[in-house]
Amino acid sequence: MKQAIVARTDIGMGTGKLAAQVAHASLEAYESAGPDARREWKSGGKKKIVLQAGGERELFELAEQARREGLPHAVIRDAGHTQLDPGTVTTLAVGPAPENLVDRVTGDLSLF
Amino acid sequence: MKQAIVARTDIGMGTGKLAAQVAHASLEAYESAGPDARREWKSGGKKKIVLQAGGERELFELAEQARREGLPHAVIRDAGHTQLDPGTVTTLAVGPAPENLVDRVTGDLSLF
Repeated sequence: MKQAIVARTDIGMGTGKLAAQVAHASLEAYESAGPDARREWKSGGKKKIVLQAGGERELFELAEQARREGLPHAVIRDAGHTQLDPGTVTTLAVGPAPENLVDRVTGDLSLF
Repeated sequence: MKQAIVARTDIGMGTGKLAAQVAHASLEAYESAGPDARREWKSGGKKKIVLQAGGERELFELAEQARREGLPHAVIRDAGHTQLDPGTVTTLAVGPAPENLVDRVTGDLSLF
């Protein structure tokens, strides 16, 4: 089991901002997962990886793939209090789900 | 309501590594919070800030303060599969809790 969190590289998020957006996505996708997936992921060490996407369109395409695969996922928009315009899409989390299923969606992306 | 996540600056975590450790801490502290705190934080937009700490000792001192204040909190150790030695303490999350209580613990730290 793992969770992959994909963050945009094209909007100049600072390190702290990026980390907060990754955490938002992680929690939201986690909460949309079923109880079995949650439990299994937690007992397996809560594996998380953070990956790169070049833009908004790529993020939405990945989200659509996750939806088609039936995987828990969440797209995060920034409230825009700092750094970014309100509503800017920043991150996507996919999983927790079996690794091979997550890899079908995010397997081609580079590690952040 | 807010959650503060404190990350060490002295262990050379890469951006993706740091974001994953922040997300671990965020989820773990969230799960240790009571249902009212969770609900209130979620309805208020899940405010999160990411802050800096200079080392392990500072992180443990902050965790001890959070404990004394009765705030949900979590200290994260890295499994050490990559980058860091196994068991390295990386991050601390405090909250979700009322902002003024979180600030008693983390109010003097710099934004990441």
